Amino acid sequence: MPIDSLYPKSFASDNHAGTHPDVLAAMARANEGDAPAYGGDRWTREFEDHIKDVFGGAAAGFPVLNGAGANMVGLAGTVGRFDSIICPETAHIATHETGAAERLLGSKLVTVPTEDGKLVPDDIRTRLPVAGVDFEPLPRVVSISQVTELGTCYTPDEIAALADVAHANGMLLHVDGARLANAAAFLKCPLREFTTDAGVDVLSFGGTKNGALAAEAVIVLRPSLTAAIPFLRRQSLQLASKTRFISVQLSTLLTDDLWSRNATHANAMSHRLADGVTDLPGLTIRYPVESNAVFAALPKEAISILQEQFTFHVWDESENVVRWMTAFDTTPEHVDDFIAAIRKVLSP
Amino acid sequence: MPIDSLYPKSFASDNHAGTHPDVLAAMARANEGDAPAYGGDRWTREFEDHIKDVFGGAAAGFPVLNGAGANMVGLAGTVGRFDSIICPETAHIATHETGAAERLLGSKLVTVPTEDGKLVPDDIRTRLPVAGVDFEPLPRVVSISQVTELGTCYTPDEIAALADVAHANGMLLHVDGARLANAAAFLKCPLREFTTDAGVDVLSFGGTKNGALAAEAVIVLRPSLTAAIPFLRRQSLQLASKTRFISVQLSTLLTDDLWSRNATHANAMSHRLADGVTDLPGLTIRYPVESNAVFAALPKEAISILQEQFTFHVWDESENVVRWMTAFDTTPEHVDDFIAAIRKVLSP
Amino acid sequence: MPIDSLYPKSFASDNHAGTHPDVLAAMARANEGDAPAYGGDRWTREFEDHIKDVFGGAAAGFPVLNGAGANMVGLAGTVGRFDSIICPETAHIATHETGAAERLLGSKLVTVPTEDGKLVPDDIRTRLPVAGVDFEPLPRVVSISQVTELGTCYTPDEIAALADVAHANGMLLHVDGARLANAAAFLKCPLREFTTDAGVDVLSFGGTKNGALAAEAVIVLRPSLTAAIPFLRRQSLQLASKTRFISVQLSTLLTDDLWSRNATHANAMSHRLADGVTDLPGLTIRYPVESNAVFAALPKEAISILQEQFTFHVWDESENVVRWMTAFDTTPEHVDDFIAAIRKVLSP
Amino acid sequence: MPIDSLYPKSFASDNHAGTHPDVLAAMARANEGDAPAYGGDRWTREFEDHIKDVFGGAAAGFPVLNGAGANMVGLAGTVGRFDSIICPETAHIATHETGAAERLLGSKLVTVPTEDGKLVPDDIRTRLPVAGVDFEPLPRVVSISQVTELGTCYTPDEIAALADVAHANGMLLHVDGARLANAAAFLKCPLREFTTDAGVDVLSFGGTKNGALAAEAVIVLRPSLTAAIPFLRRQSLQLASKTRFISVQLSTLLTDDLWSRNATHANAMSHRLADGVTDLPGLTIRYPVESNAVFAALPKEAISILQEQFTFHVWDESENVVRWMTAFDTTPEHVDDFIAAIRKVLSP
Repeated sequence: MPIDSLYPKSFASDNHAGTHPDVLAAMARANEGDAPAYGGDRWTREFEDHIKDVFGGAAAGFPVLNGAGANMVGLAGTVGRFDSIICPETAHIATHETGAAERLLGSKLVTVPTEDGKLVPDDIRTRLPVAGVDFEPLPRVVSISQVTELGTCYTPDEIAALADVAHANGMLLHVDGARLANAAAFLKCPLREFTTDAGVDVLSFGGTKNGALAAEAVIVLRPSLTAAIPFLRRQSLQLASKTRFISVQLSTLLTDDLWSRNATHANAMSHRLADGVTDLPGLTIRYPVESNAVFAALPKEAISILQEQFTFHVWDESENVVRWMTAFDTTPEHVDDFIAAIRKVLSP
Repeated sequence: MPIDSLYPKSFASDNHAGTHPDVLAAMARANEGDAPAYGGDRWTREFEDHIKDVFGGAAAGFPVLNGAGANMVGLAGTVGRFDSIICPETAHIATHETGAAERLLGSKLVTVPTEDGKLVPDDIRTRLPVAGVDFEPLPRVVSISQVTELGTCYTPDEIAALADVAHANGMLLHVDGARLANAAAFLKCPLREFTTDAGVDVLSFGGTKNGALAAEAVIVLRPSLTAAIPFLRRQSLQLASKTRFISVQLSTLLTDDLWSRNATHANAMSHRLADGVTDLPGLTIRYPVESNAVFAALPKEAISILQEQFTFHVWDESENVVRWMTAFDTTPEHVDDFIAAIRKVLSP
Repeated sequence: MPIDSLYPKSFASDNHAGTHPDVLAAMARANEGDAPAYGGDRWTREFEDHIKDVFGGAAAGFPVLNGAGANMVGLAGTVGRFDSIICPETAHIATHETGAAERLLGSKLVTVPTEDGKLVPDDIRTRLPVAGVDFEPLPRVVSISQVTELGTCYTPDEIAALADVAHANGMLLHVDGARLANAAAFLKCPLREFTTDAGVDVLSFGGTKNGALAAEAVIVLRPSLTAAIPFLRRQSLQLASKTRFISVQLSTLLTDDLWSRNATHANAMSHRLADGVTDLPGLTIRYPVESNAVFAALPKEAISILQEQFTFHVWDESENVVRWMTAFDTTPEHVDDFIAAIRKVLSP
Repeated sequence: MPIDSLYPKSFASDNHAGTHPDVLAAMARANEGDAPAYGGDRWTREFEDHIKDVFGGAAAGFPVLNGAGANMVGLAGTVGRFDSIICPETAHIATHETGAAERLLGSKLVTVPTEDGKLVPDDIRTRLPVAGVDFEPLPRVVSISQVTELGTCYTPDEIAALADVAHANGMLLHVDGARLANAAAFLKCPLREFTTDAGVDVLSFGGTKNGALAAEAVIVLRPSLTAAIPFLRRQSLQLASKTRFISVQLSTLLTDDLWSRNATHANAMSHRLADGVTDLPGLTIRYPVESNAVFAALPKEAISILQEQFTFHVWDESENVVRWMTAFDTTPEHVDDFIAAIRKVLSP
């Protein structure tokens, strides 16, 4: 992929974007004198307070280095030696982490086919532990992504329903929230409403796709799971020595609703994009546009022509589905240019 | 540990220091527009070129997120399912990574007692694989630290001798170089002389303790080991999505010898410190001061008094040994103030 | 399950049967005086010779303790740290080993839906490694079962075709042969023809379901994989101290074609059973009867009535499919009694 | 090792012996008709009852296939993802299981140097978890061997003292009892007195070295650990399909004190051997003879001459220490012949 092809703006991923200037500025401000390493610093205390403000007083936040790391540390706190994890077939943990779940956790992923990347309670009910069966691992955690990998969102009620089934059967609910901010922006509700209040047990909270440089967090909402996380984070290679620089990124996003402004803007850009092309013949929007991604099927030739000018990924070769993503720094002009190009290619 | 106790300057660890201003500035400059994620960017290409310049054309560099991560990714590329790792008892991988070697690699660490943190060839020779013995794991890698955890350095010849014994017996040599820069500064020789040229196979190259914010690298010097690293890095949770910001830190250190200037300065400060206290009654310097650490035994009461004013770790409670570390930003005034305080406490 | 319900003869599994009297007698004969432990004995030498006779001079046989053990030891010899295993959704390694593949190997199982438990070359071709993709584990081994878990058999040509695709793409072919003898009996060809000669790389060869007390073997057909097996066998808890008693079981089966006689008889009994019920209204044979298993769909009520008199498993609750298995010691009378009962229940 | 060299009787290991005739006879009797697989049979119920009789009503017994397997299954039930195991440097789990503890459990073994293979409470007290330290795994289990690998025994009080320290610090006590019977015979007390009553939490109970063909058991004495064992046993490849043949071996040993008679005899033979040579010049008995092993230092030349006639292992090459073991079927004549040979070699 030629570097120049990313300009004027990549629609390939929200992690093609850089860092929000406020985040960089805060990192520079945190570079004052010495600080205890490994999270013993005051920026990390501030981050922890932010997490309690946002997710409730029982929530405990742990800064980590990347999204797969947040997932593995959080899940490591929930699964034992013979436990399996129920997740959608499209889950990032199942498809994009080079088998870390199997290698690092040693856990079987019980992957569920879905229409839209979302589990429903029956997907759990039909995969419950069976008394007397010891030849299969014991289902112990349900892991969902909010936003899903297909750009869709669970409502708070949908998440609560999954949590209820999980808890009623001795299971926990984990959420991969690499784009949790985008979900809140779409749902127009506090982060807490579809996490803590919905019964989520442990959560990956993403900062990087929301404007951070490299900062994610494991948020533990079930206090009995908290004590293990410091060990698991370090053992899983997710503890920065100069943690202050991770914490301050997250705190900056959580200050004055920067996270929400970034996510709301990114979402608006994907809706603008979808709205601008939805009427085109030969183009079909594949999933409800509920965050900062648009999945569209269009003719293979059109894809090729567009990829000469713009950067984006083909999601499904066999069905000619592409994924277009927007970010906190995607401008209306970027989108309108892209729309114009698409219209030109697809219009008769 | 009260935050204020870190001021004016911590002598507890070189990772209590912040980020070198040139590194921060370069990170800000790298925040221009979009870039491919996961290392497909031009800053990572530049980093890779720097690595070839420094370690030779066959060297391949991979930016990672922290030191334990660099060690685990590099070692994962060398050990199979029933291989053990020979290392000093004091090795970071054996003592400070929460059992990551056992958990993530599944490998037994064969730990060797040493006087000064350094292995000698006979330590390997006496632990060679024994034909017909399948009840022990097969020794496959020798892992040393340069600088060692006791602040000492191997000479290029000493490393070459270890590499020779390892290679002659079907083993590989891994170096944990979290403080590799300090070793080069002490040895007054190019990094390459005691790595590539000495027969090292795979290397963790540390940036964070040398002035980076959070940036380390796995350097593969034996080309047959290279192809596995991208898989291992991602699976081991060590791949940043916005890798450009990791790569640019390392490139900045490798430009205009910033790494060397930082390390040379830090080393000079520890020597200044040692020189300033070595004559004191009741204080014994424990290991040769060969990098940016001073290990000293002194009376328990003196330690207590000093810890009220300065931040540093007790290394060995039972023998009242403390570790004093300097960093790229430790000033002569910091050191002299500390010396004065020590002298005051220990003088009759 | 009441013990008495197993009488007169269980149709639930071929491991409900006891031990063939010749095997027991040979075990008693091997109980003469002392012998070196861990396979250093003459009975194990004899076993190894048998394996070379049957599978070719390059084959190396290793006695192990159970079927899951044979699979895990053999597969451990083929997969590295970031490799995945392609197998049918019905594979024993995927469904009945409590997640051992994920826990002990750390490998992702890429499970393929099939009609009849058998992979075809396109199942591999559509899952080949993709250049540049490091976010998924690397497909490294194809694992099939011969006989499959649905009682079907691959022809030698079908296995050779899978081996060809695997090898052409840098992969290996593993066979779970817990019922390999039954396949040979069905195919009426030497064991070697659909293993060594078909390009199989490593094989689990089952004795227990064929009349042994507890004896399986890992057979390595690709010599470069052999050296690792002693380490892997012991580490995987599959080495008996008094190995002579495992080896002699396998040698007994391999002497005078006892293995073949046992398997041929068991297969004949399942065919007798299928033939005796295939015309019944309301009963459908689900898969081709190609070994010692009959899968049949029949009304739920009929299943309940039959289970009061006979022991067998319901394979698929949702479709009312049962599995009926025969063993080396199932007699025609056992089968005819069972047929009579089925006919009585299902006849109008 | 030439086979013939084992005759007339090996002194190399108690697993060079065959199977006690009563055990073989019972296995043949268990070969009557069908039985449920995987432990659903009546012989396994009998075994479970025997375990409750011997170890108390809260004890739960699980037949497994070998000693390393018993250790790994039992320990897997006690250690979590970041837990370490404290054990003597000589522990079988540390020295003879090809790194299974590290590979299968992922646990660090904290190995303690000892004089005689036995831990003392201070060995635990000096290795307790340290509050706030997350860079080391958390010590969670203490694992001792009874009989130790050096042939010594803990008294019931010594074990109780270890259990007390372990429990007081949130740890569990595991016992590798591959030769538990020999300890009971030496201590002249019931098995229960130094296991259940001493506070042991989980136990490997060995049958194979006591006259079984291949039969060990995991005995869980802390009921909260029981539910996990069926999953762990199967996942760890330690479940026999025809489990009745494992269970019946153990039940036979536990009937009419056969286990005790076998162990008492084996112990008597080692004492006879030690008594017969202890006065010899140049020969030193190394450890107290408290079971069926004699460790002796003698001149290298004497060892060579004796190994031409008798089978035994050199335990420590550097100090010319050999290990002589007796078994349930070692006769006084075997021992006296061996004594005569030793005397001949060593007498002036």
